[in-house]
Amino acid sequence: MNPVLVEVLRGAMVESAHRGAVSVYDGDGKAVWEIGDTNRPVFPRSAVKAIQALPLIETGAADAYGFGNRELALACASHSGEPEHVELARAMLARAGLDETALECGAHWPTSEAATIALAGAGGRPNQLHNNCSGKHSGFLCTCCHAGIDHRGYVGAGHASQEMVREAMVAVTGAAHGEENRGIDGCSIPTYAVPLKNLAHGFARMATGARLGPERASAAKRLLSACMAEPFLVAGTGRGDVPLMQAAPGRIFVKVGAEGVYCAALPELGLGIALKCDDGEIRAAEVMIAAVLAKLLGKDDAAAKLTGLANPTLRNRMDRHVGALRPTAALA
Amino acid sequence: MNPVLVEVLRGAMVESAHRGAVSVYDGDGKAVWEIGDTNRPVFPRSAVKAIQALPLIETGAADAYGFGNRELALACASHSGEPEHVELARAMLARAGLDETALECGAHWPTSEAATIALAGAGGRPNQLHNNCSGKHSGFLCTCCHAGIDHRGYVGAGHASQEMVREAMVAVTGAAHGEENRGIDGCSIPTYAVPLKNLAHGFARMATGARLGPERASAAKRLLSACMAEPFLVAGTGRGDVPLMQAAPGRIFVKVGAEGVYCAALPELGLGIALKCDDGEIRAAEVMIAAVLAKLLGKDDAAAKLTGLANPTLRNRMDRHVGALRPTAALA
Repeated sequence: MNPVLVEVLRGAMVESAHRGAVSVYDGDGKAVWEIGDTNRPVFPRSAVKAIQALPLIETGAADAYGFGNRELALACASHSGEPEHVELARAMLARAGLDETALECGAHWPTSEAATIALAGAGGRPNQLHNNCSGKHSGFLCTCCHAGIDHRGYVGAGHASQEMVREAMVAVTGAAHGEENRGIDGCSIPTYAVPLKNLAHGFARMATGARLGPERASAAKRLLSACMAEPFLVAGTGRGDVPLMQAAPGRIFVKVGAEGVYCAALPELGLGIALKCDDGEIRAAEVMIAAVLAKLLGKDDAAAKLTGLANPTLRNRMDRHVGALRPTAALA
Repeated sequence: MNPVLVEVLRGAMVESAHRGAVSVYDGDGKAVWEIGDTNRPVFPRSAVKAIQALPLIETGAADAYGFGNRELALACASHSGEPEHVELARAMLARAGLDETALECGAHWPTSEAATIALAGAGGRPNQLHNNCSGKHSGFLCTCCHAGIDHRGYVGAGHASQEMVREAMVAVTGAAHGEENRGIDGCSIPTYAVPLKNLAHGFARMATGARLGPERASAAKRLLSACMAEPFLVAGTGRGDVPLMQAAPGRIFVKVGAEGVYCAALPELGLGIALKCDDGEIRAAEVMIAAVLAKLLGKDDAAAKLTGLANPTLRNRMDRHVGALRPTAALA
């Protein structure tokens, strides 16, 4: 039974509550802080996009196509479908001679309401580039093209693209990735349920390079650095990952995943973090990760900003203050 | 500690889980079925709009303005802001000589994505009529105008409009409604946290009229009947309340509330139901209410439809089947 980690207040009363588990590891595989059941397998979903992007660099595709921080950040993103995201995904595909018809992630209206309204107002319709995963998928497609692999069907579990991703996930997390723990993600690629502690250890390795080998260690650092340099491209306007990474520029990597997951790293402390809100609520996962980061950074200036992010207020349609979210003592 | 009532599956594995409490009462105040802690106060939010609409009928306003099932259903609604909802709210206000500028609920884009896209595509902007609570607020305003009460500030806890609502809530639920359990709702009116068992008993009274007095009993039945006759106006395209009420037309009343609440009634069985998902997730509250209704209706034809609604499948952006929600044994 995982403890309540976040309470939702209306006025002075608790209206809703969120349970969860948290794991913090160092690169050598030492558990630094654990809350709840961190052995239970969880689907990390989009929180591991930085690991899934390793083959993009390791195959040489990123360099061949001239990708810098912006493109690498978008390859690790769950973006909001704002024009800057869409145009960058289009440009990435164009470097490999492809367009959005090669994407197999499906189309949806931008997750940004403002972007949806602007697109609809201009008489537009969304295509696959607006899918929040289009940057990751563009990375997969570029990897295939550079490596001379037929990209058709690249989302399938047996395709060389997903096999490269799976190999990277196994190597970084140390967890088994097989049929028995495989599900299908929202964007159609495989996602594998692994224990939070493996994810935490994996992100500590991504940050420190511990036992990854020099090439993979370098690729991992390059990806985390790109995300920290371009937080807007990893998420979008008003999204949690942006202020979290901006709280201490270049020192905090975070990535949200569907169903209340966060993976994170503090490179200077050599720590990796993974957490999941039991019920899948992202609002609570955001509070959890902010509280965990504030605690780990201690008396740092960034901790005050993170504590603010861990205690958001709730305002209603008339902008009246009606409540708040707060971390419980279990996170203090 | 409330039990897990709903599991979210990805492939064959549980990805997320939702806890909750359920109370089923008859009109005489007998507990018929209880799960979890039904004594803990919960904010019912929009799930009690039918009780909040009692003064609209009891003051004679509804009859004076010629309101039928459609207007009464909208007064009990959390609508999706589709054109039919917006125009009906506008027409209700017009009967009292008012327009949307009298509303104090605030404006937001329609909760229906399709309605938002259509509105934006036509170059429009939302006003207070698009607020999901505009029908309820139009009812409050019509009540004030008919009763000769200055409607300005009608959302405030001390205003005659909200005092009428509070009196109805106290009478129907038997629970105290005071400053100590008061919060502010999303649409700015007061909301009071009361035990689930009081809400369940209250909706059994709404359905049966037990100890409400003949006038209130008649008003209650008229409101529930209106909602059951016009489920689309209570919610909107693709929303849970519609198929739930359509599963057995005229025999099931349900109303969702924010933060995972449902109130419901089965008039022919004389039962009232109230439930809350601990974490506030509506997807889980929908599964809970469908499973509870299926169980209570037993071998009824409607039960098969409700069991289907209690076991929705999850499809991804490419329309692939990726998972499902299911009620746990605690609801069987």
